[in-house]
Amino acid sequence: MAQKYSFLNGEIVPHEKAFVHIEDRGYQFSDGVYEVILIVNKKLIDLEGHFDRLLRSLKKLSINHDIKKAFLVENIHQLIEKNAIINGSVYLQITRGVYKRSQIYPSDLSPSVVMKMSPVEINRTLGEGLSIMSHEDIRWQYCDIKSISLLASSLLKKKAYDQGFEDVVYIKNSFITEASFANIFIVDEDNTLITTPADESILEGITRNRIIELAAANGIKIEYRKFSLEEVLSAKEVFLTSSTLLVRPVTSVDDKLIGKGEIGQLTEKLASLYYDFIGV
Amino acid sequence: MAQKYSFLNGEIVPHEKAFVHIEDRGYQFSDGVYEVILIVNKKLIDLEGHFDRLLRSLKKLSINHDIKKAFLVENIHQLIEKNAIINGSVYLQITRGVYKRSQIYPSDLSPSVVMKMSPVEINRTLGEGLSIMSHEDIRWQYCDIKSISLLASSLLKKKAYDQGFEDVVYIKNSFITEASFANIFIVDEDNTLITTPADESILEGITRNRIIELAAANGIKIEYRKFSLEEVLSAKEVFLTSSTLLVRPVTSVDDKLIGKGEIGQLTEKLASLYYDFIGV
Repeated sequence: MAQKYSFLNGEIVPHEKAFVHIEDRGYQFSDGVYEVILIVNKKLIDLEGHFDRLLRSLKKLSINHDIKKAFLVENIHQLIEKNAIINGSVYLQITRGVYKRSQIYPSDLSPSVVMKMSPVEINRTLGEGLSIMSHEDIRWQYCDIKSISLLASSLLKKKAYDQGFEDVVYIKNSFITEASFANIFIVDEDNTLITTPADESILEGITRNRIIELAAANGIKIEYRKFSLEEVLSAKEVFLTSSTLLVRPVTSVDDKLIGKGEIGQLTEKLASLYYDFIGV
Repeated sequence: MAQKYSFLNGEIVPHEKAFVHIEDRGYQFSDGVYEVILIVNKKLIDLEGHFDRLLRSLKKLSINHDIKKAFLVENIHQLIEKNAIINGSVYLQITRGVYKRSQIYPSDLSPSVVMKMSPVEINRTLGEGLSIMSHEDIRWQYCDIKSISLLASSLLKKKAYDQGFEDVVYIKNSFITEASFANIFIVDEDNTLITTPADESILEGITRNRIIELAAANGIKIEYRKFSLEEVLSAKEVFLTSSTLLVRPVTSVDDKLIGKGEIGQLTEKLASLYYDFIGV
């Protein structure tokens, strides 16, 4: 369902009236960043983590701003009320601002800030395992920045769908980086949880970090290292994480079953710990 | 000077009222393409080349459209009149359209079409040689598509400016690809013009192609091959081409002079042929 109200540069406006100028650098140069924060029972999940990452992304792009967290949070809560959201997500986008189209821009532009909401159905059910494909990682080099320069991810996700898959994992220099809009974990025969170290080749997911913390607190072994497609295919379990996917099991990759093609025990346990954490 | 009128989805509107919805996929996913066409004495330079490339870019992104060239050209001429442009450029952007933010989208969205103009001073003067730097090519893999996913180019061009350079050339797998928003040519000791073959690693420039054609028609030897930064540094001449740069000599790279740091004869000759071609 389309939401009724959104946030636009300091004000809550009817969603259908949320317009930006064509010379917003977000529209002409994908010069901006974003966050998606899960809302459960009107509560913002891992707000601190998302906000800190937002500030890191803005800093990495040298986007000048005077963002007040308290002001944004206050407006998010107003949007939750005005849109009657119980469970959902808030999308927050900040671009460098409006300037005549030019490759070079002044350092003191006033950034554009946009927020919109979507309802999300949230329960303790993992659902069916995802069937995903692999593809060369065609993205740019600074994937640690949560930028709106998302054409590569968008194209590959669509390509996966068009070929009958539900998502796509990227391969860069023979190693898996991440999925199109999610991080990937694998579980080996010793029940060790393995995840890619957070370098420039992946986005350091807030849900990923939370899962790692929950795993550590519950005595699950964790290894941070790069892994290949072959390791994914021979893994005992595979799952994806993101703010809106939460924990999603993967049961086949490139039409090859992971294990017996069933949802794994560690995946179920971590999902359950995460449901507890978010209070669902 | 800001222009008075722009084109927005079928209509000419006051530039300050040219707004798009925040859920235009161009704004959230950089899901769109663009062209910049030079205008000399109210005439569109290499219109066919630009329009053909626009259609190729749209096709490569599977953007569904019903673009009528005659309609766009008619509106460009109206914009030229309404904005009193003699020499300038028209910026044309087409995005996939407006849809609730979602990684997956329907195939039949109605694309957003935007055009705006800028005056450009055009004369037969080459001006001073550019001082440029080199940098790793951090862009995505499909640089043959003229997409608005321009964050990488925008960041590196700004980085170059902040470090006192006027542009930046990219190095990918030990070879030069192109400059931030322009193609690069080098001239060797035998006065052979050398340019990178048009593969996925560069945008096939319309001005580049025109320069190649003019060179061939005037008995200048041309080689299509990849070349290294070392070859650029030891080249007799180096120049950039784009629709708005036209032909721009480069006289230093990474603070090392090209030749004696003067504008080369072949560069001057090709610029002169190009000025003749555009009728300036």
